[in-house]
Amino acid sequence: MDLNCDLGESFGAWTMGDDEAMFTLVTSVNVACGFHAGDPRTMLRSCRLAGERGVTVGAHVAYRDLAGFGRRRMDVAPDELTADVLYQLAALDGVARATGVAVRYVKPHGALYNTIAVDESQARAVLAGVRLLDPGLPILGLPASVIEAVCADAGHPFVREAFVDRAYTPGGSLVSRREAGAVLHDVDAIAERAVEMARDGVVTAVDGTVADVQPRSLCVHSDTPGAVAMATAVREALTAAGIDLAAFA
Amino acid sequence: MDLNCDLGESFGAWTMGDDEAMFTLVTSVNVACGFHAGDPRTMLRSCRLAGERGVTVGAHVAYRDLAGFGRRRMDVAPDELTADVLYQLAALDGVARATGVAVRYVKPHGALYNTIAVDESQARAVLAGVRLLDPGLPILGLPASVIEAVCADAGHPFVREAFVDRAYTPGGSLVSRREAGAVLHDVDAIAERAVEMARDGVVTAVDGTVADVQPRSLCVHSDTPGAVAMATAVREALTAAGIDLAAFA
Amino acid sequence: MDLNCDLGESFGAWTMGDDEAMFTLVTSVNVACGFHAGDPRTMLRSCRLAGERGVTVGAHVAYRDLAGFGRRRMDVAPDELTADVLYQLAALDGVARATGVAVRYVKPHGALYNTIAVDESQARAVLAGVRLLDPGLPILGLPASVIEAVCADAGHPFVREAFVDRAYTPGGSLVSRREAGAVLHDVDAIAERAVEMARDGVVTAVDGTVADVQPRSLCVHSDTPGAVAMATAVREALTAAGIDLAAFA
Amino acid sequence: MDLNCDLGESFGAWTMGDDEAMFTLVTSVNVACGFHAGDPRTMLRSCRLAGERGVTVGAHVAYRDLAGFGRRRMDVAPDELTADVLYQLAALDGVARATGVAVRYVKPHGALYNTIAVDESQARAVLAGVRLLDPGLPILGLPASVIEAVCADAGHPFVREAFVDRAYTPGGSLVSRREAGAVLHDVDAIAERAVEMARDGVVTAVDGTVADVQPRSLCVHSDTPGAVAMATAVREALTAAGIDLAAFA
Repeated sequence: MDLNCDLGESFGAWTMGDDEAMFTLVTSVNVACGFHAGDPRTMLRSCRLAGERGVTVGAHVAYRDLAGFGRRRMDVAPDELTADVLYQLAALDGVARATGVAVRYVKPHGALYNTIAVDESQARAVLAGVRLLDPGLPILGLPASVIEAVCADAGHPFVREAFVDRAYTPGGSLVSRREAGAVLHDVDAIAERAVEMARDGVVTAVDGTVADVQPRSLCVHSDTPGAVAMATAVREALTAAGIDLAAFA
Repeated sequence: MDLNCDLGESFGAWTMGDDEAMFTLVTSVNVACGFHAGDPRTMLRSCRLAGERGVTVGAHVAYRDLAGFGRRRMDVAPDELTADVLYQLAALDGVARATGVAVRYVKPHGALYNTIAVDESQARAVLAGVRLLDPGLPILGLPASVIEAVCADAGHPFVREAFVDRAYTPGGSLVSRREAGAVLHDVDAIAERAVEMARDGVVTAVDGTVADVQPRSLCVHSDTPGAVAMATAVREALTAAGIDLAAFA
Repeated sequence: MDLNCDLGESFGAWTMGDDEAMFTLVTSVNVACGFHAGDPRTMLRSCRLAGERGVTVGAHVAYRDLAGFGRRRMDVAPDELTADVLYQLAALDGVARATGVAVRYVKPHGALYNTIAVDESQARAVLAGVRLLDPGLPILGLPASVIEAVCADAGHPFVREAFVDRAYTPGGSLVSRREAGAVLHDVDAIAERAVEMARDGVVTAVDGTVADVQPRSLCVHSDTPGAVAMATAVREALTAAGIDLAAFA
Repeated sequence: MDLNCDLGESFGAWTMGDDEAMFTLVTSVNVACGFHAGDPRTMLRSCRLAGERGVTVGAHVAYRDLAGFGRRRMDVAPDELTADVLYQLAALDGVARATGVAVRYVKPHGALYNTIAVDESQARAVLAGVRLLDPGLPILGLPASVIEAVCADAGHPFVREAFVDRAYTPGGSLVSRREAGAVLHDVDAIAERAVEMARDGVVTAVDGTVADVQPRSLCVHSDTPGAVAMATAVREALTAAGIDLAAFA
């Protein structure tokens, strides 16, 4: 099982998350590419550290929205979104190559992640941007989403992930952060949930129904207080359950 | 002789220059990479057109300054500047590859161009950024400048250019745009000057002294009224003088 | 009748529209405040010219989206949108006062204009931002829209406008720019339409139905080729029809 | 004696400093205006808190450089800098008025602060921007600096400040942050130094010479680890020495 987290989300004088610690806990890092976070120096440092630690790098592409941290849906025209994705992916790809590592997957960020789970036009636009650079580069996303269908349609590799600390609807979507209970906080429960996801391939929704989503990666958060403790607990629980941790890509 | 111009300097709803026309007149285009101008869609379109027209693409890297169009000197720390150059270059490189063309040189833009002609710290930082992506990628710049010396010192390819419509100091620098007469406007005189530069390898300064700079590329402006007419005149004069036009890279 | 247009939409090295000419044709100008266009120097120049020409200034507030020119809907949280509107309005208000003029109304721009015509949450957020600075400052917008209802509910002054060169739905909304025929181009027809709007207070929709909207202002475009010619024709037709032109505020 | 600190330097999802704590320790806050830090929502919140706590608000105007946090000198043209200062000051002024407080002084930030201490052109440009909004609004800055001379020349109020934790040159300038020992860290020594500055009006330079600068405000940092502890120690030492703390404006 792969364990992924967002990383490199500092910007200039502002820092976010404890990247040093997270590098020791996960197997894949979604590195910000400058549109929602991640200045070039931070990107370079993140790729260097990833290379040193043997952690796989993915491109965390986003809407162009520093002020909103990429968390606000934007009605970007398809050809513009395609170019924005290509630009960010290309930038990180070159920065990564400069440090001797490769970008091995793409994970859209924040509002873009959520939008392409339901909006076919933006999903196709994101896919087109990825394929312009590399038609074989996997996209990491939500199971049973529109982006998964769009990838299947194009014969493009798609990798399913599950979020260890997010509540799910019976339909397999994430409960909106604006609703109470959307984010779980009990570390033990989260660790147990992670093991269930990894071992059984299922996600339990808020109504108790179980979706057989077979994730190949689990996402842990990196930018919240307690993120390091939670990722540590998840990692230890997975290891204790005999689950090998390794990047999917 | 190579004929280069800046290109792809539109941004979102704002356009600059007549890119379509310039593509038919020059042999190399310095494509903006998003920091002073050039949104991703414009970059993608520019690279596609360059491929179709057989025009060589260079990366027009700049300070991060959209509001100032990269024309304001900034005291950027060397490691930050290195990363900024690498990021821009990598982004354009990926966008170009997506359209089947390659970035064949780097030309720093505006205030960065002028600064690295005299400031060793920034010159070394820019060179480091280029070399991180590709140690063989030529830098296009001012003859007898600090960046030329820094490239020579590192064994890095450097290509000299001359500006057909700019006044020169006896020392071979450009007369500052803030001084009267810095920019020439007489199309016939400019065309004649271009022929002199190309045929004799010299630049005549404001005091009449002649510098033997041997440019391998001539720069024509693209973003001023009359730019197309001037580039047309320069091209025709060079051709009439029997000078072959071809990209240096 | 008031005649308004967008103005001051240049940004740094990029220009948009022929502001000089438009100042001689309209009675109110919607001045960009820096979020979708309009750098501070341009704002200062626009306010100075407005003062000299006796043209009324309105604040053209927008989403924070330079790359998209404020034309892309964004899911901005209400408290963020309120603060964004207040900031832009306050900035223009101070710049205007520095030149001896006052901001006399607010007209949201682009996607924000369209969104608050239908989205109550964003409409309330915009209104809250305006009221924080000045509870008496009129908002200029679409007749029979959500923002009009929200203003009515709060006892806040709202002013109706009509677009002389846009097609209308039977419901009184603008036909989306993505649909054919959304923007009219026949100058004579537009001038005639303007007279009908001003004299009879009606807007004719694409299906021929007529809505009695009683606009107090007519909007002419300023950023399209032919904008000056169209505004001239509209102004002349209105004057020929005996309609006095004067700012509503 | 006034005690001032920078505040409101968060931006979107990124936070900086412990603003809540600093509000209880200082008498004046330099509130970021959006160009180097400080999104509108943060500005609004900062002004509200300042009003509730009875702390005086100053405008912390800066170069337009979010990526560099306003710490990089920029060669901005005078008329552009004047407009940039006016814009930021106007924005904060309006946001402050919306919360019932007033902006009572201007303190340029970072590289702009340092530049106008030595560069007459930029100093005059900043002063012009301030005077456009309010010819009586004091500027807070470095004693014996070019901006002080420029203000004196114009009959504009200027207020001297000293930095409790910065090393000074014999000439009364700040030792560059790039040099070792530029920033002091010993809390006891800093508190003692603050008392000396407030009681005796002097600043001791790195060579032991003493400059009689008579500061009317002391600046404590807010964005470094230990900032709250240091400000607390300074405040307590000043109080223990019988020095009353009150805003200068």
